[in-house]
Amino acid sequence: MSAPRYDVLAIGNAIVDVMSPCEDELIEELGLARGGMMLVDTDRAHELYEAMGPAREISGGSAANTLAGLSALGAQCAFIGQVADDQLGEVFAHDIRAVGIDFDSPARPGPPSTARCLIFVTPDGQRTMNTYLGASQFLPAEALDEGLIASAAILYLEGYLWDPEQPRAAMRKAIAAARAAGRRVAFTLSDAFVIDRHGDDFRALIDAGEIDILFANKAELAALTGEADLEAGLAALAPKLPVLVVTRSEEGAVAISGGERAEIAAEPVEHVVDTTGAGDLFAAGFLAGLVRGEELGRCLKMGAVAAGEVISHFGARPEADLRALMKVRLG
Amino acid sequence: MSAPRYDVLAIGNAIVDVMSPCEDELIEELGLARGGMMLVDTDRAHELYEAMGPAREISGGSAANTLAGLSALGAQCAFIGQVADDQLGEVFAHDIRAVGIDFDSPARPGPPSTARCLIFVTPDGQRTMNTYLGASQFLPAEALDEGLIASAAILYLEGYLWDPEQPRAAMRKAIAAARAAGRRVAFTLSDAFVIDRHGDDFRALIDAGEIDILFANKAELAALTGEADLEAGLAALAPKLPVLVVTRSEEGAVAISGGERAEIAAEPVEHVVDTTGAGDLFAAGFLAGLVRGEELGRCLKMGAVAAGEVISHFGARPEADLRALMKVRLG
Repeated sequence: MSAPRYDVLAIGNAIVDVMSPCEDELIEELGLARGGMMLVDTDRAHELYEAMGPAREISGGSAANTLAGLSALGAQCAFIGQVADDQLGEVFAHDIRAVGIDFDSPARPGPPSTARCLIFVTPDGQRTMNTYLGASQFLPAEALDEGLIASAAILYLEGYLWDPEQPRAAMRKAIAAARAAGRRVAFTLSDAFVIDRHGDDFRALIDAGEIDILFANKAELAALTGEADLEAGLAALAPKLPVLVVTRSEEGAVAISGGERAEIAAEPVEHVVDTTGAGDLFAAGFLAGLVRGEELGRCLKMGAVAAGEVISHFGARPEADLRALMKVRLG
Repeated sequence: MSAPRYDVLAIGNAIVDVMSPCEDELIEELGLARGGMMLVDTDRAHELYEAMGPAREISGGSAANTLAGLSALGAQCAFIGQVADDQLGEVFAHDIRAVGIDFDSPARPGPPSTARCLIFVTPDGQRTMNTYLGASQFLPAEALDEGLIASAAILYLEGYLWDPEQPRAAMRKAIAAARAAGRRVAFTLSDAFVIDRHGDDFRALIDAGEIDILFANKAELAALTGEADLEAGLAALAPKLPVLVVTRSEEGAVAISGGERAEIAAEPVEHVVDTTGAGDLFAAGFLAGLVRGEELGRCLKMGAVAAGEVISHFGARPEADLRALMKVRLG
């Protein structure tokens, strides 16, 4: 087994976020699940966009956001995801390459268009996401380069991508390729609703020992384990995973690995502007620590600092110099 | 002459801004004119985009930004501009309609694409703009609806649009239509380099009494009058215009109308994030006061408050509730 060329290779939805602040009433009027992610078709996307105030477009996608954070922290990264051959596809490709991430998945010609996530951000900073998957759902399993997967120390996968059929098959193939090459597989559960739809798949993967590092938030842990109590959920899941990380929003985070347990408080954030990307950047900071061989508590702390940065501004990709920020916060 | 349906109708470039923070060194490396606006062709736009860090897309365009401010302040507005039938065209159309502005110019099928402005924002908040005009330069004179022009109390035009031939012809036609309908014509000089190219046209329009309200900054006043001294420039130009407004960045602004002169200081801004749109929003605040019949000094103050808001964040369209802000600042 040769030394890996990349620290992290991620497979994820290639999405441009369309973000707009809104009042709480609009969330209700539109019948949206506050704080969650819903998949929408073309008509519903059009309807929601019509109802949305002036917006800004910022590249997103859960795993892509995580890589942007990892890259900002000095990790070598590559991304696999499907954009269409259109302007938003160019925007996504530009933004991910501009932070030094290798991205060579060819754009898909013709319709549908590049994925968009219509994000309504309420005054408390909470984001409600409506994803039109477009081209992203057509990531073909054949497009996966097994050599590329073998060249990364960690394969990182987002649960969101389990919804569409083709990327799900691609991810199963990727997991097999990574395991065959002796690499680690990291997985983020993404959303409690995704677990409602695909929890059996996720539990089977975990039980089969296919996942090395799992990221979940409190709601996702409960949905996956059926345990409403945090400690009961941790006790049920931790023994099945080499590394388990559970984020708890403003209550901090906990990680368990090989019987060792670490906990941290959330970073103080003066004003929460937009929580989009909080979990993604937490994973980025944590993984950046892990690939550098930091101890568990410090990995958590790095996750909290990265998450704290991203919720202090609009958009799910870091804007501040994360390396400098880590120095200030962690020494 | 019937009562106008719109307070302001603007004709301008229909542009989506592609904005990215950058270090000062990059401006030099790329050979950009710091603080100015350069027109770029497809190849140069591609080259600059390649060199740009991760960006966000926010609707822009000078006159369109001004209308967004006017609309936020309660004015009835309509916009004429040319987008292409593509994703960025949809973004532009959505964002301008989402703030209540009527925009019915049909999208232009086929290439070129919707105009983009690649904006590099240095740490001091200064913006350096590189505009790919794309579809915007093909606004046809025939597309102008003389009935629409006659239905607005003020026709507002941006100097930037004087560069491409077709919109220049369209604007000349619009000026004639507005004057024939007894409406007022407002004009912003946009950029000192635009005056280098088209100063003779602008001076001829002013000398012929075709302009009722002129917006300029210090550099533009100097370029137009040939007077390096502010007072000499004002003395040369003011007698030719019913209303002259000159902005002076952090030194405030001055307005002269019918022999009356008013001056104000700039609004205090805690941290200048991005100066893009400062002049556009100053014009918005000033015109919002003017259409409400406010006195000259108060119009200036409204301009300063609107400009102060837009430079406190990324992007050239207002984000805060401008009406509430005016109440706080002006009582």
